[in-house]
Amino acid sequence: MVNSEQSVIYLDHAATSWPKPPAVTEAVVQAMLNDAANPGRGSHTMAVRASRVLFDTRKQLSKLFNIKNPNDIAFTSNTTMALNMAIKGWLKPGDHVIATSVEHNSVRRPLYYLEQTIGVEVTYIEADDRGNIQLDDVAKAIRPNTTLAVVNHSSNLLGTILPIAEIAELTSKHNIKLLVDAAQSAGILPIDVRAMGIHMLAFPGHKGLLGPQGTGGLYIDPELDLEPLLHGGTGSQSEAREQPHVRPDRYEAGTQNTPGLAGLKMGVQHVLNETVQNIHTKEWTLAQRLMQGLLPLRGVRLLGPELGKQRTGIVAFNVDGIDPSELSFILDQHYRIAVRAGFHCTPLAHACAGTSMTGAIRASVGIYTTEAEVDALTEAIKEISQQYGA
Amino acid sequence: MVNSEQSVIYLDHAATSWPKPPAVTEAVVQAMLNDAANPGRGSHTMAVRASRVLFDTRKQLSKLFNIKNPNDIAFTSNTTMALNMAIKGWLKPGDHVIATSVEHNSVRRPLYYLEQTIGVEVTYIEADDRGNIQLDDVAKAIRPNTTLAVVNHSSNLLGTILPIAEIAELTSKHNIKLLVDAAQSAGILPIDVRAMGIHMLAFPGHKGLLGPQGTGGLYIDPELDLEPLLHGGTGSQSEAREQPHVRPDRYEAGTQNTPGLAGLKMGVQHVLNETVQNIHTKEWTLAQRLMQGLLPLRGVRLLGPELGKQRTGIVAFNVDGIDPSELSFILDQHYRIAVRAGFHCTPLAHACAGTSMTGAIRASVGIYTTEAEVDALTEAIKEISQQYGA
Repeated sequence: MVNSEQSVIYLDHAATSWPKPPAVTEAVVQAMLNDAANPGRGSHTMAVRASRVLFDTRKQLSKLFNIKNPNDIAFTSNTTMALNMAIKGWLKPGDHVIATSVEHNSVRRPLYYLEQTIGVEVTYIEADDRGNIQLDDVAKAIRPNTTLAVVNHSSNLLGTILPIAEIAELTSKHNIKLLVDAAQSAGILPIDVRAMGIHMLAFPGHKGLLGPQGTGGLYIDPELDLEPLLHGGTGSQSEAREQPHVRPDRYEAGTQNTPGLAGLKMGVQHVLNETVQNIHTKEWTLAQRLMQGLLPLRGVRLLGPELGKQRTGIVAFNVDGIDPSELSFILDQHYRIAVRAGFHCTPLAHACAGTSMTGAIRASVGIYTTEAEVDALTEAIKEISQQYGA
Repeated sequence: MVNSEQSVIYLDHAATSWPKPPAVTEAVVQAMLNDAANPGRGSHTMAVRASRVLFDTRKQLSKLFNIKNPNDIAFTSNTTMALNMAIKGWLKPGDHVIATSVEHNSVRRPLYYLEQTIGVEVTYIEADDRGNIQLDDVAKAIRPNTTLAVVNHSSNLLGTILPIAEIAELTSKHNIKLLVDAAQSAGILPIDVRAMGIHMLAFPGHKGLLGPQGTGGLYIDPELDLEPLLHGGTGSQSEAREQPHVRPDRYEAGTQNTPGLAGLKMGVQHVLNETVQNIHTKEWTLAQRLMQGLLPLRGVRLLGPELGKQRTGIVAFNVDGIDPSELSFILDQHYRIAVRAGFHCTPLAHACAGTSMTGAIRASVGIYTTEAEVDALTEAIKEISQQYGA
């Protein structure tokens, strides 16, 4: 198994973490070779083992997020599917939703669809140019028909961390359910669904949890009943025309991604071993180092929280006079540095940051990122801005 | 990479094919190690390679199904998701649907949901006890508001093959769109969407196409526009609140399963190399051999088409006096033979076959199944029926 990309400097962890811990890839292979019969669909030994893989993965995730019953986690193919399941499964005609202006299109587009089709109303709390929102604005947005608040735990553009527990304290008083988009925080920031008052948690398997693409999930508070996004076979109550109520079957129609989830289990195990707190500290420190390197450079403008403030390992920026797409192309071709340019599926956050016309470069670090890699980006930006910058 | 299951006799290919061609697992590993950045979400080299993986997989599938434009294929995590996308994305309040009584719950449950919520009407064409339907019954079921026919290409219980092209000829005259559930036929029976008049084809990656679990897709005729099942980020037209119309983005929100799809590409390649016709002939011959072995046994009752008739490699049966679950348990524990017992998520087909109260044992062969394996099942059933049978 040759890794031909060992010399790339990969700073696109906010899209997909890479490389994975070796145990993740090994678990995928072992599941494909030995366990990938149909979980929950047969009583033979391999099918039972496949069910076991899924249950073990649920257990590890429950440990990480302090979820009481592993069966309250439904697996999905990505965070987008989890968010669609939560938003479309919970909201009813006439409901009002509170969201924020740092939401990803995976929240904004499902909400807009429901606005157009069933008359759901949405209030987007305006974040400031660094991605912070005011709790007062949340309080003011609450209406009698508010049934859901959807909040990005951390902006995928700005790296800002939103005050989930404080928002929950506010919304829970009004019996508003809280859906958290943990795309940029699962495995990256501490999450305790019970202590933080989270009713639904949508998370990716392939970012901070270090699992393969094609995995993710939604935690659903046991008190909540969602209309399932998918109706279909569950291996249980075959005769019923309705989707069974038993969890996780209710929200997991069709054959699950056993090899991917076997890999995810090992990814979560790695996170538990390292501890989320240590991962966060490491990534924050690298982000500070990158910011310290970039800040003095002429024409470089950083987005998101100021130096020294809380944030994730995402550092977005622009260089005056260079289009972000061109800049990322130069970084890729001349420096073998992988970053992401463009709008990152979050036009609202760009509006906050004042970068709606240009987009931005987003560098994001991961558990294996080194100081030398971060410094290499700083050096590259220095050279490029001197050569091309305005 | 040790395969500890080499001694199992795996006859559950209709659930998930196993083992996979070695190239499939290798491709998954290579993608995880080298290519699994975010397809369509960045311009850096690894992200471009991930996009390429997806496009190559689409191209291979297009070759297999005679699809003109690879971008008319949307990837899903399984057939259930593809069927939900098709059924919920196409049907409108007041529409009438024609389906058959051999449909899987992945068709019956979404249809029932739409019956309950938006007043869709459904007519199930009754199959006979061997799973065959009459074209006349389809003709009689057509109404002025019929907009969709959903037909299982091959029953997942009975192995019966339905006359897709003939149904299409009938329904197309009335401008009824045809959705085919190819869960048991993709890679197993010849499928030509253009010659057969198929408007939507829902297929699994992990059965006859020999790919990993967590993969599948929906072909959507370019003339059709579906409301997407998932709304979210696509890496394109980030500023738009609506899901973009460009394909495949419209139907593929969120990060795709790059490693799984890399594996699927090699699975489809294997099918193309072997040819579907040869695979079908091989599996049909093995099914005949199994039927010939089982038919003379006292108390054994076979379901589905008669000996010598067309069918897939699925052979379902019961043994008088033994509960199918107990029988499959004995096969697993004493003979290391993996089959599936129960209702197979298709209560309607059990009603046709007269097995609604008992369920059945389903044995299903695959590309690597040998005559000796099939004979081992026959011998085991012989012993068990002598010992326990009524």
